[in-house]
Amino acid sequence: MPDPVRIERPLWLSPNGWTVEVLDQTLLPGQVRIVRLRSLKDAAQAIVSMQVRGAPLIGVTAAYGVALAMRSDPSDSSLETAYDQLIHTRPTAVNLRWALDQMQAHLSPLPPAQRSQAAYLRAAELADEDARINRQIGEHGLQLFRQILARKPPGTALQVMTHCNAGRIATIEWGTATAPIYLAHSLGIPIHVWVSETRPRNQGAALTAWELGERGVPLTLIPDNSAGHLIQRGLVDLVIVGADRVTASGDAANKIGTYLKALAAAAHKVPFYVAFPGTTIDWTLRDGITEIPIEQRSAREVTHVAGMPPKGRRVEVAIAPPDTAARNDAFDVTPAKLITSFITERGLCSASARGLAGLYPDQARSSTRSVRARTRR
Amino acid sequence: MPDPVRIERPLWLSPNGWTVEVLDQTLLPGQVRIVRLRSLKDAAQAIVSMQVRGAPLIGVTAAYGVALAMRSDPSDSSLETAYDQLIHTRPTAVNLRWALDQMQAHLSPLPPAQRSQAAYLRAAELADEDARINRQIGEHGLQLFRQILARKPPGTALQVMTHCNAGRIATIEWGTATAPIYLAHSLGIPIHVWVSETRPRNQGAALTAWELGERGVPLTLIPDNSAGHLIQRGLVDLVIVGADRVTASGDAANKIGTYLKALAAAAHKVPFYVAFPGTTIDWTLRDGITEIPIEQRSAREVTHVAGMPPKGRRVEVAIAPPDTAARNDAFDVTPAKLITSFITERGLCSASARGLAGLYPDQARSSTRSVRARTRR
Repeated sequence: MPDPVRIERPLWLSPNGWTVEVLDQTLLPGQVRIVRLRSLKDAAQAIVSMQVRGAPLIGVTAAYGVALAMRSDPSDSSLETAYDQLIHTRPTAVNLRWALDQMQAHLSPLPPAQRSQAAYLRAAELADEDARINRQIGEHGLQLFRQILARKPPGTALQVMTHCNAGRIATIEWGTATAPIYLAHSLGIPIHVWVSETRPRNQGAALTAWELGERGVPLTLIPDNSAGHLIQRGLVDLVIVGADRVTASGDAANKIGTYLKALAAAAHKVPFYVAFPGTTIDWTLRDGITEIPIEQRSAREVTHVAGMPPKGRRVEVAIAPPDTAARNDAFDVTPAKLITSFITERGLCSASARGLAGLYPDQARSSTRSVRARTRR
Repeated sequence: MPDPVRIERPLWLSPNGWTVEVLDQTLLPGQVRIVRLRSLKDAAQAIVSMQVRGAPLIGVTAAYGVALAMRSDPSDSSLETAYDQLIHTRPTAVNLRWALDQMQAHLSPLPPAQRSQAAYLRAAELADEDARINRQIGEHGLQLFRQILARKPPGTALQVMTHCNAGRIATIEWGTATAPIYLAHSLGIPIHVWVSETRPRNQGAALTAWELGERGVPLTLIPDNSAGHLIQRGLVDLVIVGADRVTASGDAANKIGTYLKALAAAAHKVPFYVAFPGTTIDWTLRDGITEIPIEQRSAREVTHVAGMPPKGRRVEVAIAPPDTAARNDAFDVTPAKLITSFITERGLCSASARGLAGLYPDQARSSTRSVRARTRR
């Protein structure tokens, strides 16, 4: 087991070369526990239970789930079962399907005897590709950070606000929204992050504060309610968030509460950036507000809060009267017009159909064809 | 002790005619406990510990604190001590000073032998006056509610969003922001309230959900993060909040997070109302954003959440890594331009110097004089 104090990646292959170790993110920040995945079932369970979370990390975990399945039974039916079991773990995760499609396309043509080794190699490639993509996002975002910092008095830190956890533990390394933050910090650029707690699941407080803190990035935790006030007072130079789904026209679905930050940033002319890999774009959608389905989660996440009591194990406490009705929309949609720029692995672009198509002409074209084809049917 | 299931007022005189009973609001919603105040010290402690909270209720509690002091010692020095001890319990509460000034002006000229009885009578008057003022706020607000409801399909409920607790337990009765809600509900007008939890202290989840629920008003608890999404989706007909301080020009300081709701309401042309009694207006201030001091509270309120575990007593759980830095601004300022209308005991007015001076010409004039006098010095 690695040093529990410093986690390089939230998922890695064990020294034995076949089991997969993951950071149990349900126990953060109270406890750093590593879980060992030995089977397809273990991998599926780790995703379902949210021990691993974050679209890119879910994708890589699923890829290793296929590898574990191939190691125990490399038959066609085993491959099919692995795909089916894993695809249903988190139905809305775009990267999950993408990663499983990659694995299936790669393994199906191979003779069963070669599949296990090939699956491990492909899963490792997907992991490394994710790390590389995020590093590129970091480099492109860093340009923007440097431009903004250049307009500030020398020696003052760049004040960055983020929401939820689009961090390194939601990916294999770097994160998306956090990639330019880590890169800036590693280069000695003075930077400070306002971390919004992100009720109801508190991923900001539990995960982003943890992972930035572990790397020594200066941060201050705030209630989600404080975002408008801090922006109004000129204490925020830029806002950067990730995205769960981006439409071809540039609307961005992200964790609930993102939209309020975008409104506040726009009201005070503070740049609002959305960072994501190209795989997050849903080329079939135009209007994010009417077309992106918003997952409804359990009322209990709203009426209760999980955390560490002074003594003993993590516990859920009720913050509302018993049986209070609650509504729990997991995401909201920020319209393109509130987004200053997208930051992708291919570079920066405006939040617009034109901007996205300029960076991803290959994907934009093929999707236009498929939308047309669908419409004709 | 009254029926613990239904609390008519959060403060009342005991049947013995001299002790004062208050609802311990620090234990809500988990436990309905009544605390008996027997002395000046008890009254001061109830305010400091936030067993009573809400500007109007603090004022009335302080008035009864003076009465308790006069009962045990009606001397001039005792009156002075009572004023001094109570004024320092919550330094920023505007109504606290107002109520104490009322008591002092009333009692000082009297012979000590008459002070105890006079103090109890004056405190009761202040309480009843608060209830009457809030009832008037309710009636004026109800006009607006009716106008909006008239434009909706018949039979659909009015969808109201509120923030924090400007409710009946923050006052003697009715509340400010909740006054038109209770009035509408009592008249059988279909109404539903989106209650925003109001991190970090969760007054929405713990207090507003409790007090509305106790009166049978339909409500749904939401994370603060959901406000923008629900407004964007057309699920909110109006937003109504209270205020801690309103400038002569119409800027309103209220619980942190109010500003984000105002931005979202403005973006979607949803009316945003601020309800308060005239005593909330600070006639000496013009620019709310630069002139209203914002109380900084403990980081622990951000890094921890208090609630009821499955078994046992109320507990605080940590939601962030140990020693995480946090910032806790208690209030934010919503600029006048985002406020559709003020709702006061004297009626409705625009959020502007002209609007406020029109409703309170007496106070506006005298404050102009005092500001001029101050400037000359």
